[in-house]
Amino acid sequence: MSSSYHDVAGQHVRRIEGLSDGVFAIAMTLLVLELHLPGGEMIADDAGALAALPAFLPKLASYFLGFLTLGLYWVIQSAQLGMMTRSSRTFTWLHIAFLSVISLFPFVTAFLGDHYQLRMAIAIYWLPLFVGGVLLYVAVRHARAYHLIDTERDNGAIIGRIFTAQLLYAGGALLCLIDTRLSIAVIFFTQLKFALGPIGRR
Amino acid sequence: MSSSYHDVAGQHVRRIEGLSDGVFAIAMTLLVLELHLPGGEMIADDAGALAALPAFLPKLASYFLGFLTLGLYWVIQSAQLGMMTRSSRTFTWLHIAFLSVISLFPFVTAFLGDHYQLRMAIAIYWLPLFVGGVLLYVAVRHARAYHLIDTERDNGAIIGRIFTAQLLYAGGALLCLIDTRLSIAVIFFTQLKFALGPIGRR
Amino acid sequence: MSSSYHDVAGQHVRRIEGLSDGVFAIAMTLLVLELHLPGGEMIADDAGALAALPAFLPKLASYFLGFLTLGLYWVIQSAQLGMMTRSSRTFTWLHIAFLSVISLFPFVTAFLGDHYQLRMAIAIYWLPLFVGGVLLYVAVRHARAYHLIDTERDNGAIIGRIFTAQLLYAGGALLCLIDTRLSIAVIFFTQLKFALGPIGRR
Amino acid sequence: MSSSYHDVAGQHVRRIEGLSDGVFAIAMTLLVLELHLPGGEMIADDAGALAALPAFLPKLASYFLGFLTLGLYWVIQSAQLGMMTRSSRTFTWLHIAFLSVISLFPFVTAFLGDHYQLRMAIAIYWLPLFVGGVLLYVAVRHARAYHLIDTERDNGAIIGRIFTAQLLYAGGALLCLIDTRLSIAVIFFTQLKFALGPIGRR
Repeated sequence: MSSSYHDVAGQHVRRIEGLSDGVFAIAMTLLVLELHLPGGEMIADDAGALAALPAFLPKLASYFLGFLTLGLYWVIQSAQLGMMTRSSRTFTWLHIAFLSVISLFPFVTAFLGDHYQLRMAIAIYWLPLFVGGVLLYVAVRHARAYHLIDTERDNGAIIGRIFTAQLLYAGGALLCLIDTRLSIAVIFFTQLKFALGPIGRR
Repeated sequence: MSSSYHDVAGQHVRRIEGLSDGVFAIAMTLLVLELHLPGGEMIADDAGALAALPAFLPKLASYFLGFLTLGLYWVIQSAQLGMMTRSSRTFTWLHIAFLSVISLFPFVTAFLGDHYQLRMAIAIYWLPLFVGGVLLYVAVRHARAYHLIDTERDNGAIIGRIFTAQLLYAGGALLCLIDTRLSIAVIFFTQLKFALGPIGRR
Repeated sequence: MSSSYHDVAGQHVRRIEGLSDGVFAIAMTLLVLELHLPGGEMIADDAGALAALPAFLPKLASYFLGFLTLGLYWVIQSAQLGMMTRSSRTFTWLHIAFLSVISLFPFVTAFLGDHYQLRMAIAIYWLPLFVGGVLLYVAVRHARAYHLIDTERDNGAIIGRIFTAQLLYAGGALLCLIDTRLSIAVIFFTQLKFALGPIGRR
Repeated sequence: MSSSYHDVAGQHVRRIEGLSDGVFAIAMTLLVLELHLPGGEMIADDAGALAALPAFLPKLASYFLGFLTLGLYWVIQSAQLGMMTRSSRTFTWLHIAFLSVISLFPFVTAFLGDHYQLRMAIAIYWLPLFVGGVLLYVAVRHARAYHLIDTERDNGAIIGRIFTAQLLYAGGALLCLIDTRLSIAVIFFTQLKFALGPIGRR
């Protein structure tokens, strides 16, 4: 019998994966709850539905931006968890904190879709993007310091990627001082580039 | 230690299955959020509840249509993932894109339930049906080209089925030029035929 | 290479379990969306919150009834899937149909919570309870006929239990002709008995 | 062929983990549905968004409190399930009852966010916190009595932790007689201490 609660709790990487798959899947799917054609049930004919489309496009664009953001974080976290041989309670809690940030995206995405012309909307979208990156970085550092990682599978490139992505996000967010649409475009294409990067190579 | 992030990320078919099960389960269950008896909490007696039923039936029908659509795509994707020996980042992203389309069904299903008499509702329902098929087709082609598939389990019939289904969906959707209910019926029975097909054979 | 799509699709019992866990978890959790203290954000002090409690209790009771119903179906389906050695496409579709019924419970539970005095609310709650039992029964019969079950683990008692439970549910539902609260009580205590049955024995 | 339904049902710890991961993931993510900037779509400029922030902070604070509470219970339950060699139907039902309590947190958290100055909000938040602890305690006692636990991995410290936490929660909740914000702070920092406890040690 082991002597402390500490040894038993939070060892299971597989459980963290299960919880994470759930949180990501739900955060992705909740994004759709914000999709409504303006005017909703009042739309009476095809002309009315067509007329509602232009006001609907920013919502649809922010839906795909939100999905792309969550997809990227899911791929990065998936890669990180795939390198682990075991967990620690600290590592578990860093990922729970990470999930609490991931879970904010349906809210910040909806706010961006409704108010894409506001700098506050960019700031509110960027903040969890930044904190999520910090938490993943701290989790990798912790995992290395405490030898939780299978060194065969360890991949130095993860930290480089987190830094590059964060620099581009911060730069993109700062562009809101000029035009918020510029910020959205830079963040969107940064993420698209990271997602599409491998195509053609493997 | 491997030299690039690219080798670590997105290799795990099992994680894609976990995320997909989550997204499908939530998309299926969110369909129910659109089910409300017209008049809702105002209904005062059994006669009132009975009187609300006719206006409720199109919503219920679109609920089952949405569930059938999602069920079919889940079975097809499940079969595809079951053939994989490993993933690639491109394959992972094709499936994340596929899930972003799947996740739209609660929205397009609700719109169809509210506006089944509009051609726009048929078009909005057909679009993710079509894009989802395209993405699964591209994913199979990619997986074969990069030898990600266990050839023992590879099944040429999947691509044939995707083509047949897409032709029938497109034909059904075009029938909205005559009557939108005709479109819904053709899409519904096409999907029912694909789902019930095996009964009696195995 | 196998010759038909039919052999590849829907073989994986584990994937059905993953999808089912998702649908049950979401259906259970969506029940909570209907919990609101009447008056909501208008409540200004503790006296107001206390005054709102009586009207809140039927909602809370239907929340626990819904959770109990879903818990029972989850345990029964879990036992059924635990006996399977493999799946068939028919078996897969019977379970997808079963999940489309399970997914209705947040709706029928909310309707019962709002209108517990209506016979229509009892009828609407009883219908998926009945269809769910029928689908599980058909799935067991199919699985036996096509030898999908591990005979070592097969358990004749499942069918007996489904019949007994359905008889008690139908009888309970019919009591709504006298008083709907009688129906709710009989269905609730039937399910509680099935759930608590084993306590003390093992 | 075994002789009773009882032997088949509810043996599978892995299925309980799957269902639990789903319920926790959804409960965590539903917390976000309560996050709305007061004034919502009416906000017209950055000044308006800034002005809405102060009224938004209690909601955000209760979001993180809810996430912390759910994270703690997930870690404790995860540790408990990790010790099990098998389940029993009673054990399964104790965990379904536990999940029905977990699933209440989006509701009680939202109520606390809207009415943090009410003692009723503290009472409503404390009640599932207490019942959840009781259910986990009973489940551990049952698992030991019926030898469902792998004694190698059994950890006496779990029960000690549950007791200490519950005493601090009850004490914190009682402080609402002085000031509700004091209650929230004590419960929050108790949970933070339990979560952060291991940092620096391992």
